[in-house]
Amino acid sequence: MTAVLAERVARDLADIVGAKALIVPPDTAEFDRGYRYGAGQSLCVVRPRTVEEIRSLVRYCVGEGIRLLTQGANTGLVGASSPDSSGEQIVLSLDRMSGLEDLDPLDRTATVLSGTRLSVVNAAAAPYNLVFPIDLGADPSIGGMVATNTGGARLLRFGDVQRNLLGLEVVLVDEQATLLTDLRGLRKDNSGVDWKQLFVGTGGAYGIITRARIELHRQPQQTLAALLVPRDHAVVPAIVDRLEATLGEALSACEGMSRNALFAAFKHHPSLRNPFDEIPDYALLIELGTSFPAEAGIDLEALLAFALGPCFEGDSPILRDTLIGRGEEFWAIRHAISDGLKRSGAVIAFDVAMPRSRLPQFRDVANKVVASAYPFLQVCDFGHCGDGGDHFNIVWPADLPRTGSEYAGVVEALQELIYDLVVHEFGGTFSAEHGVGPHNLRFYQRYTSPGERALAGRLKSIFDPKGLVGNVDFH
Amino acid sequence: MTAVLAERVARDLADIVGAKALIVPPDTAEFDRGYRYGAGQSLCVVRPRTVEEIRSLVRYCVGEGIRLLTQGANTGLVGASSPDSSGEQIVLSLDRMSGLEDLDPLDRTATVLSGTRLSVVNAAAAPYNLVFPIDLGADPSIGGMVATNTGGARLLRFGDVQRNLLGLEVVLVDEQATLLTDLRGLRKDNSGVDWKQLFVGTGGAYGIITRARIELHRQPQQTLAALLVPRDHAVVPAIVDRLEATLGEALSACEGMSRNALFAAFKHHPSLRNPFDEIPDYALLIELGTSFPAEAGIDLEALLAFALGPCFEGDSPILRDTLIGRGEEFWAIRHAISDGLKRSGAVIAFDVAMPRSRLPQFRDVANKVVASAYPFLQVCDFGHCGDGGDHFNIVWPADLPRTGSEYAGVVEALQELIYDLVVHEFGGTFSAEHGVGPHNLRFYQRYTSPGERALAGRLKSIFDPKGLVGNVDFH
Repeated sequence: MTAVLAERVARDLADIVGAKALIVPPDTAEFDRGYRYGAGQSLCVVRPRTVEEIRSLVRYCVGEGIRLLTQGANTGLVGASSPDSSGEQIVLSLDRMSGLEDLDPLDRTATVLSGTRLSVVNAAAAPYNLVFPIDLGADPSIGGMVATNTGGARLLRFGDVQRNLLGLEVVLVDEQATLLTDLRGLRKDNSGVDWKQLFVGTGGAYGIITRARIELHRQPQQTLAALLVPRDHAVVPAIVDRLEATLGEALSACEGMSRNALFAAFKHHPSLRNPFDEIPDYALLIELGTSFPAEAGIDLEALLAFALGPCFEGDSPILRDTLIGRGEEFWAIRHAISDGLKRSGAVIAFDVAMPRSRLPQFRDVANKVVASAYPFLQVCDFGHCGDGGDHFNIVWPADLPRTGSEYAGVVEALQELIYDLVVHEFGGTFSAEHGVGPHNLRFYQRYTSPGERALAGRLKSIFDPKGLVGNVDFH
Repeated sequence: MTAVLAERVARDLADIVGAKALIVPPDTAEFDRGYRYGAGQSLCVVRPRTVEEIRSLVRYCVGEGIRLLTQGANTGLVGASSPDSSGEQIVLSLDRMSGLEDLDPLDRTATVLSGTRLSVVNAAAAPYNLVFPIDLGADPSIGGMVATNTGGARLLRFGDVQRNLLGLEVVLVDEQATLLTDLRGLRKDNSGVDWKQLFVGTGGAYGIITRARIELHRQPQQTLAALLVPRDHAVVPAIVDRLEATLGEALSACEGMSRNALFAAFKHHPSLRNPFDEIPDYALLIELGTSFPAEAGIDLEALLAFALGPCFEGDSPILRDTLIGRGEEFWAIRHAISDGLKRSGAVIAFDVAMPRSRLPQFRDVANKVVASAYPFLQVCDFGHCGDGGDHFNIVWPADLPRTGSEYAGVVEALQELIYDLVVHEFGGTFSAEHGVGPHNLRFYQRYTSPGERALAGRLKSIFDPKGLVGNVDFH
């Protein structure tokens, strides 16, 4: 695009959203770079404040054939909200589309503008003892969460965004900027095509999410966290089974942490208390939450002891130890892992999932494969073993020298190795909860069947016939 | 279609599925009539036993331009699995596509052929203390449940089919009979377009479901049912709120029953024990279920008493009475209502839902509207007040004379009256859980926006370009 043309476009956009809502280079830097991956150059950034402004923008872009990219809080991990380097994409930031339009405590629903941050929703819900229970490390926008179908640590009990989405409003990228709206917030509605599902987890490739109606959940009246030390990681599915059998609906998280991951967390966060006598090969962080109040005689600690009793019995008990403590302290360990790994070296991140019963065998095989091919690397995995998710992250230690091309070569080889193993040998997925973006698009292409890709392409042509929105081509 | 042509088609079909798997008129009667609505005449019925047979059938039908209609257990309530009267539709019955292909108790998942009945799944799951927790009056096929997105009485806790569907296999009705398969059963997978959602709740209009992988749930270790008599129906949302606040994740059902509905159940089922001193205006049937075992000191009856205590306090307590008893006895009352109404007269059935906080006001208004326009009719509603669902059924008493045309006129007028009220005044839906079929298609057309209908039509052209499958046009 020529400078003259770029200036004309900027003037036209300023007419639509107002000059104050337009940002041009070089001031676009914070919008041009993703949280983990993605660094490009946008044509400009527009920050509309109403759905009508967005529709006008879309009509303009469709008319002029200009590409646009929706961006929420820009906290995604696959580069899906970062512009490419062409300098020809408009970043449509939803950061000013923020706020709750209603919150009904009896219905336990809220209608929110798509740029609203998760923390804002939860702050508004807290006085009613309600929460949007998708728990994760960042503070994303609700629209971004829908586009990514965020999962997180409490999926076991509360499900992902899809399971808690009761309504949606989207603008399609067609000539009319078609507006699809269903914000009624019905728990039971079986009256046609549930089109909102097509915008869940498709990273903004099919349209621009403007509003969502979400289901809120009760804050538990009591919670309890515990660290469990299993005999070895192979018995984890049996432990999960026991926990579900006895504590069922109260089990709200079941996270796994490898010794290397724990070690990195403690090493680089000296203020963290290490509750272990000796860091175990693998530890579980579990969380119980119940609406049953303590005043009614419900004691979660006694219940947990009852549930775990049999795990300590027999000649070869499947549990070595249970540590009960303050939940925040245990979660702080879990949440310190990512940063601990970053401080340990270069992190080669994998966000995989498979049927949960297969996770131990996968960990065995994958650890052996990495140790044999790259003995200098450290596997530091952790994740959501209750639902089959594993952040199989690998660290290239900071004190081991590496050249850029050497590193890139190892990353590329490892990605094929690990993803092939997950997908072909263990019936799993290369993207459990981070979604698909430019960072991992080639693995989408590698593992997705031609039929599914053809379908994705045809869907795209319905919603965005000129192919203008997003930076991922699912075809 | 001429008799000669029909005979040729029958011969061709027999070549594909075998002569024994082909049924021709007049032996097709049981497949030609729906459970509640729908009575047509099929060209013939084919009963394939493999996915490959289904694909061959589809290729044949697409090549010849012959329409086909998928039928599961034929228990639907909107006529969506009954052929029209043209005599030109092939009924593709999935009744021989039955059986579980695997059941993994550690993963709590099962892969089932789509013609498998719910009761068969639950019988296979029972030895593992597992259940597919979609609870409803009929015994549908799993494929039919997916196509209808069945909800039922325990949606409050377990969600609908969509929330418990981890994988799907479908055959599209295109020239290649494209097979889409994802049966990995992943709880976390965010690696592209979740195309299976398009086949959930669309009544078979977009393809033929052949297999599903479903999430099973633990059978509760303890359950408790209770009948609650509220001061009046207006306080029901407050009671639900109190129950959720204190019993939260253990509340597995919250059903409402009007006096007329209860009266009909007791009158026509003399063997039912009536636990009420006097039949109340409105009663709630609630069910608690927990994994917490009694041996761990968890007493559901004490918990319920604790939860409900405050509802009996104050000058004007919101609860009049609580009856604790055997769950089966209370559920038997609830389940006797439908039959009780049928024996009371002609039932004009409504399957509506709205935000649950608005249900009492809707009931007030709708009861007044019916009483004023048709004082001889009896509103006998019941339903799922915990999630905003209401079977607002109206009985034309058997002892009041009626002519066919008079009856049809009243039904038509009532449908417009009630559905308009639900959709336009109360932000609700004309079909909460029964789906869309020829029976209620005109209301789909009345309430669905042009944008949504255009989208539905374009989706149809992707999956079934010649428009051959199903008997509902969502466009």
